[in-house]
Amino acid sequence: MDQSSPAPRISELHDHAGQPVVVRGWVTHVRSSGKVAFAVIRDGTGVCQAVFVKSVVPPEVWERFGQLTTEASVLVTGIPKPEPRAPGGFDLQVSDLVIHGESPTDYPIQPKEHGVDHLLDNRHLWLRSPRQRAIFVIRNEIEQAVHDFYYQRGFLRVDTPLLTAAIGERAGLFETEYFEEGKAYLAQTGQLYGEAAAAAFGKIYTFGPTFRAEKSKTRRHLTEFWMIEPEVAWNDSADNMRLQEDFVAYLVQRVLEKCRPQLAELERDVAKLEKVTVPFVRIDYTDAVATLQSKGSDVKWGDDLGAEDEALLVEDYEKPVFVMNYPKEAKAFYMKENPADPRTVLCDDLLAPEGYGEIIGGSQREDDYEKMIARIKEEGLPLDAYGWYIELRKYGTFVHSGFGLGLERTVAWICGLPHIREAIAFPRMMHRLRP
Amino acid sequence: MDQSSPAPRISELHDHAGQPVVVRGWVTHVRSSGKVAFAVIRDGTGVCQAVFVKSVVPPEVWERFGQLTTEASVLVTGIPKPEPRAPGGFDLQVSDLVIHGESPTDYPIQPKEHGVDHLLDNRHLWLRSPRQRAIFVIRNEIEQAVHDFYYQRGFLRVDTPLLTAAIGERAGLFETEYFEEGKAYLAQTGQLYGEAAAAAFGKIYTFGPTFRAEKSKTRRHLTEFWMIEPEVAWNDSADNMRLQEDFVAYLVQRVLEKCRPQLAELERDVAKLEKVTVPFVRIDYTDAVATLQSKGSDVKWGDDLGAEDEALLVEDYEKPVFVMNYPKEAKAFYMKENPADPRTVLCDDLLAPEGYGEIIGGSQREDDYEKMIARIKEEGLPLDAYGWYIELRKYGTFVHSGFGLGLERTVAWICGLPHIREAIAFPRMMHRLRP
Repeated sequence: MDQSSPAPRISELHDHAGQPVVVRGWVTHVRSSGKVAFAVIRDGTGVCQAVFVKSVVPPEVWERFGQLTTEASVLVTGIPKPEPRAPGGFDLQVSDLVIHGESPTDYPIQPKEHGVDHLLDNRHLWLRSPRQRAIFVIRNEIEQAVHDFYYQRGFLRVDTPLLTAAIGERAGLFETEYFEEGKAYLAQTGQLYGEAAAAAFGKIYTFGPTFRAEKSKTRRHLTEFWMIEPEVAWNDSADNMRLQEDFVAYLVQRVLEKCRPQLAELERDVAKLEKVTVPFVRIDYTDAVATLQSKGSDVKWGDDLGAEDEALLVEDYEKPVFVMNYPKEAKAFYMKENPADPRTVLCDDLLAPEGYGEIIGGSQREDDYEKMIARIKEEGLPLDAYGWYIELRKYGTFVHSGFGLGLERTVAWICGLPHIREAIAFPRMMHRLRP
Repeated sequence: MDQSSPAPRISELHDHAGQPVVVRGWVTHVRSSGKVAFAVIRDGTGVCQAVFVKSVVPPEVWERFGQLTTEASVLVTGIPKPEPRAPGGFDLQVSDLVIHGESPTDYPIQPKEHGVDHLLDNRHLWLRSPRQRAIFVIRNEIEQAVHDFYYQRGFLRVDTPLLTAAIGERAGLFETEYFEEGKAYLAQTGQLYGEAAAAAFGKIYTFGPTFRAEKSKTRRHLTEFWMIEPEVAWNDSADNMRLQEDFVAYLVQRVLEKCRPQLAELERDVAKLEKVTVPFVRIDYTDAVATLQSKGSDVKWGDDLGAEDEALLVEDYEKPVFVMNYPKEAKAFYMKENPADPRTVLCDDLLAPEGYGEIIGGSQREDDYEKMIARIKEEGLPLDAYGWYIELRKYGTFVHSGFGLGLERTVAWICGLPHIREAIAFPRMMHRLRP
């Protein structure tokens, strides 16, 4: 082993063309003609093809090549040469090979079809596949884009608590004992805290995990998922929708700009993503119901829209669609009554195209002290658990709006994934707590 | 009210000097000479001084000024003029005032000394103070700096699960019922998952909340706190410490570059922060114990270092100090045995200066399959809960290292806060679950 050579990541090989290096990684494929042998090596930053020429390498190196198995970890010394036809764009002309960690031939993921339960049971290894890496490169880009978007616009990120005594929505709470304080609940949203922070800092956003102890087994539900929840003082519902469309269009644009190879790996139809530009269409809930009924849905005014209705409504559009101003009874207590139609509230859901459905729920918040108290009582919620929240309407109440974007739903849509479970590294679902 | 004027944030007033605008915000102070009156308005992005000239404004506006109370929300129409002596650098020459939301005179936070319990009970309002805003501007800058640092270096952010069946460390777990899967535990670390992700993606980091159900009542402990946990394939312990010092020096540098006004608000001695440059001193644990004993500590070889010992050790240094290679029994089972002294492990704690103590714990991870199994058994941990984790050593084991930086401890140190509770928006401590 040549200890003196640099050991770059595969993504850095272009800086080392023609110079001996040590590549450290894992074997994904091997093949041999008898005189020349190839091993594709991945190191998480990229792949390169190690080329072993029998007449050039020492006999013991040739012999070691024969011992390589899938996911064995190796240190390969060689000279990188650009080779457009090679996986990853580089051949490595090998002079030495060390097998660092063997990989028994019972490696759980083989180049054949596996059932999804087997893959999820082996999620810690499944992540090593090219498809999974492509998803997580895109997820990483989306996350960085979220932060860049709000940082550039002067928002403060605020980390709201996960352990909470207050109750955001009513059902589906995970609970735990909290010392002598009694029960604590895992947050379903950071919004209520975000509202307090918006009064303090003007423009804020949260970025964190949220929890739903719901027995949902759909392709759009996780029990633990990440949400981005901006909240802006002095924004009304119209401002709120403008922020949402700017935000979503920015995320899609960033992925198109930075992640073309990963979208190709996923065979994503990028033409569909390229259509996601502002403005998005806005449909009043009442009009949406009429449209759905004309398309044969049995939805009635007053109902929330289910996944099927959402898909039916969006099928006529090539980009996300806002449905706004839902009936009060279909939505949460904190949404502001619509002065133009007090049966409804100033809110919106943003529905992604291609059948992906709701990725955002947003609203202007009720800012009237008395109305807020009345709504909490109407819903049968414990008034004193909301004492601090109500005080935001007592001391200098303010027009404000915000929304929550579901990160995994957004990743699934942008990546074109059939199920949300692939959009997070270690998904948590009703029957899935491991690994 | 002039509906046609733009309504910029106070931070944007410099783009509107000399033009009528509407400022929307909250009243922090008022004073009046009888002919000229001043109200300082904050909107979360900054403050400006609204100037009411009795002979200029309509009588009803002058009268409304007299009704202003602390934290009333207002819409003030006026013309901004740069005024270096004014709070926030702008005077607003007022023509109109609307009181949007009154604020009763029982506002809980008055310009006097309050006990910390009162302030924490009113955390949703306390956040509005200039000191708290300064802290959260700095926290926001640190968080963005974290993401920028790793994004620029090609790390993938990986969000590891909070609900987990596996057990990272042994004591102090919050638990919850998880459907038919039995108990789930709130994660104390994302590290084990981070190791799996490092084998898949090479260089990763996590950024998320972690939990400790510990009855600690010190100024350095929260039950819920945020950690950044990088994990890097092929990094050994020395590489790991280089990454840590580059990272911490970068965070401090970013705050010095971007947050001078906030550091001034906090009366932080920036000269102390300016000394935080690489490299940091590295002290072997064994030498640290000898030094501590010579300073009068009764620490014995084999003990972990407590907060007092840490402070005693660091008092001779002006920047963070690494203490490395602790005895095996003082540290977690997953740390790699030190080949040069098998009584110890390849690890480090990074201790912040000025008495702030440990902000990072890091280590090279045990990568030997048999040794890992032996260590898990030695610690009495359930082997099958770690099955997937052990497999990382079975299929292509790899040298790897990582660390966890405590976000609130880092914010507290950089801001110079006496207690970690101010470093997070809604702190969770043993007796503190609200608001």
